[in-house]
Amino acid sequence: MDTTKKTIIVFSGEFDKVMAAFIIANGAAAMDDDVTMFFTFWGLNSLRKPEKVDTKGKSPLQKAFGAMMPRGPGRLGLSHMNFGGVGPKLMRRVMRDQKVMPLEELIATAREQGVRMVACTMSMDVMGLRPEELVDGLEYAGVATYLGDADAANVNLFI
Amino acid sequence: MDTTKKTIIVFSGEFDKVMAAFIIANGAAAMDDDVTMFFTFWGLNSLRKPEKVDTKGKSPLQKAFGAMMPRGPGRLGLSHMNFGGVGPKLMRRVMRDQKVMPLEELIATAREQGVRMVACTMSMDVMGLRPEELVDGLEYAGVATYLGDADAANVNLFI
Amino acid sequence: MDTTKKTIIVFSGEFDKVMAAFIIANGAAAMDDDVTMFFTFWGLNSLRKPEKVDTKGKSPLQKAFGAMMPRGPGRLGLSHMNFGGVGPKLMRRVMRDQKVMPLEELIATAREQGVRMVACTMSMDVMGLRPEELVDGLEYAGVATYLGDADAANVNLFI
Repeated sequence: MDTTKKTIIVFSGEFDKVMAAFIIANGAAAMDDDVTMFFTFWGLNSLRKPEKVDTKGKSPLQKAFGAMMPRGPGRLGLSHMNFGGVGPKLMRRVMRDQKVMPLEELIATAREQGVRMVACTMSMDVMGLRPEELVDGLEYAGVATYLGDADAANVNLFI
Repeated sequence: MDTTKKTIIVFSGEFDKVMAAFIIANGAAAMDDDVTMFFTFWGLNSLRKPEKVDTKGKSPLQKAFGAMMPRGPGRLGLSHMNFGGVGPKLMRRVMRDQKVMPLEELIATAREQGVRMVACTMSMDVMGLRPEELVDGLEYAGVATYLGDADAANVNLFI
Repeated sequence: MDTTKKTIIVFSGEFDKVMAAFIIANGAAAMDDDVTMFFTFWGLNSLRKPEKVDTKGKSPLQKAFGAMMPRGPGRLGLSHMNFGGVGPKLMRRVMRDQKVMPLEELIATAREQGVRMVACTMSMDVMGLRPEELVDGLEYAGVATYLGDADAANVNLFI
């Protein structure tokens, strides 16, 4: 077993939980750990491009899911005190005041530090999300890949 | 330490989180890992029989909890976009379209693969759930059992 | 690696999830494990003093966050069936009937058993929580401290 590997399943799509996931991932990467983040279910929304992307072959239900789910880190809600979307704005402002890195930068830093980001293909099928709707530089895989990585890691979190 | 053991605490009772738990459990069992799932608090609802079961000796409050909590995987809500129960129906339909195994089959497969399912007795006391209200084939234990299993496992998740 | 260390990130501030965290922490401590709990984001609310504490230098937004977030374990909501605050009261009553240790005692027991409680300083900055607003006997640290502890532990949970 290698003590320098970490995996994080990002299941939740809330701003605060995604923040926590990236803060841990970046912290570990800064300590030279190999970090893999698996984005599944609502967590995939944090990887969506902010603009609408035309796609073909989606069922009406998949289109509806796609239309209702937030596109990218700028539109995620809070798990508490969301207040119809005002909560995240307020939290972002406090974070800026406190010089906390914004989520978009945390994601960019994670990439620069070589954090592997894996999108769960089964979840993408269910939610009708296509690779072209997600940011570049992702890997696409399923639960077997996750388990292989988790077996080689010493810290495995589900967020 | 044995690298082939996994434990999952299923605390949440939402359809999507319970799905994620069973997908991971089944994936690990398919790779010949020993998997133990501990169902506690709302997670116990996914193990309830769908029919109403007469029980004796419950306090009025326990009866109220029992009446308000969903009975079995067919009645669990979504953690996001539940829309008063329509959300899970839509997600189930998309899953069927995408040939994703439904939750009931995931649970049955987990049993066939020998995944151990343990119901937390303290949570059962609090929520007033009796063994006869839960599906067959469960073990009943507490936190000490969980910790013993987690100590012997290399992946431990809290969902 | 030492098989007797455990870490728990307490991110969620809901009564039921905080209960689960302390039940696991106390169970592990009773088995002579070294347990560290990291309180971050909403989890910090479970460590707030119940009374209002005067503080200086908070921004209006930080004051607003502070005013809206629950102060201490007595005011936490449930993750399901909160019913505007009635849910936690009902759950507490059932717990008392069932001789389950109340949350306040679980926290006191954790202290007596030597469970380390660490408050995340970055979250405190964002939410405008000051050490004087939190209960005594905490440590203050960031993600690097968490990762160091998690590396030395064999069970790491995110709740």
